[in-house]
Amino acid sequence: MVSLPLDEALHATRVLRLTPGDSIRVFDGGGGEWRAEIAHVKRQQVEVVLREAVAAAREPRIPLVLAPAVLKGEKMDDLVRDAVMLGATAVQPLVTDRTEISIAALARSTRIERWQRIAIASCKQSGRAVVPAIRSPLTFEAWLAEQNSSFRLVLVEPAATADSRAVHDVSEPVSAEMAVGPEGGWTARELAVAESTGVQFVTLGALTLRADAAPIVALTALRTVWRDL
Amino acid sequence: MVSLPLDEALHATRVLRLTPGDSIRVFDGGGGEWRAEIAHVKRQQVEVVLREAVAAAREPRIPLVLAPAVLKGEKMDDLVRDAVMLGATAVQPLVTDRTEISIAALARSTRIERWQRIAIASCKQSGRAVVPAIRSPLTFEAWLAEQNSSFRLVLVEPAATADSRAVHDVSEPVSAEMAVGPEGGWTARELAVAESTGVQFVTLGALTLRADAAPIVALTALRTVWRDL
Repeated sequence: MVSLPLDEALHATRVLRLTPGDSIRVFDGGGGEWRAEIAHVKRQQVEVVLREAVAAAREPRIPLVLAPAVLKGEKMDDLVRDAVMLGATAVQPLVTDRTEISIAALARSTRIERWQRIAIASCKQSGRAVVPAIRSPLTFEAWLAEQNSSFRLVLVEPAATADSRAVHDVSEPVSAEMAVGPEGGWTARELAVAESTGVQFVTLGALTLRADAAPIVALTALRTVWRDL
Repeated sequence: MVSLPLDEALHATRVLRLTPGDSIRVFDGGGGEWRAEIAHVKRQQVEVVLREAVAAAREPRIPLVLAPAVLKGEKMDDLVRDAVMLGATAVQPLVTDRTEISIAALARSTRIERWQRIAIASCKQSGRAVVPAIRSPLTFEAWLAEQNSSFRLVLVEPAATADSRAVHDVSEPVSAEMAVGPEGGWTARELAVAESTGVQFVTLGALTLRADAAPIVALTALRTVWRDL
């Protein structure tokens, strides 16, 4: 017997008006998904019995963390939803030179919890059973300096740097993290710091993409190149 | 000497407050782009002198027409903007079994002119000098029956049909048109009609994408596979 979390219990009873015997799907956020049956409904508590395990959407073979500069308002909500739908392993919000909010202001706000709720909702919509973590925001420099073995990519416009590679030519890593800049792009200072840490700059053809479309296009392009969509 | 179209003339004088001698960029919508100088400003008429031609964003090598089911309200605006930004050769709006507006209602509305304006604005934003046509809406069946030599793709969910191909495995055509379904997807009837006309069904991995994200993801994936982003 498993109890549903409070918000799911309220949704089940007040919105969907489910009663004992009704069949639902539940997932644990770590990859497990089951067909389940409602056993008891008692005020705000809903208990379900797990029946058989069901096959959730396959997770991508190559873990890919998206590290986008925090965009304004709803644009960031859409970005989180789409990144989860496209199989991002985690979302690492970045504060960059041209980001209009500070780490401290983000920490005081309710935006991170909001993105976590959006990530869960996006998993439900897209049939994904693993809920990607929304990591604590970092400055771009702190992200560059982080010690982990993932291959680091930084999305840039073709003219931004001499040393970039087209997305078609990025060979398959064991795991990767990709930073995407804010409205207005990276500053020359940021590009110089990134270059000194040995990241791979990557470009998406000659067109200028909107800041809110670029991460989705880049995720799709990389997964396609790696045959991992 | 060239006169700017009325809306661009008004934008130049009333919003940007440009005066004779100011430098601008103009494009003819057919691939030509120039640096130009404002010569005369007279009420709603702005005349410019073309200086040197400039290099616009390269057009994709493989013409690809996007044929999306008409989505509701602003979602379709976003779709048109993103499709133009990603190099679609034209946009062919489709009315399908689950589309909530009829061809007649679309023809009476101002939506098609609105999408044409959005296409021009998106060209300006993305540095594209060719303005893709927004074609007259067609039913899905009429689109399937159209006589032209473009390779026809229909985006489907993996479970929708037995005979589909992953986007990674769609080899490079001379030119292509791709239909993408509405919220709620294709009906069984539509899939049967499509199958009988010999289209190529194509899938985008196991995840369920939102109707407004699917066309962009599919455009990006195909262009990446064809190394034509």
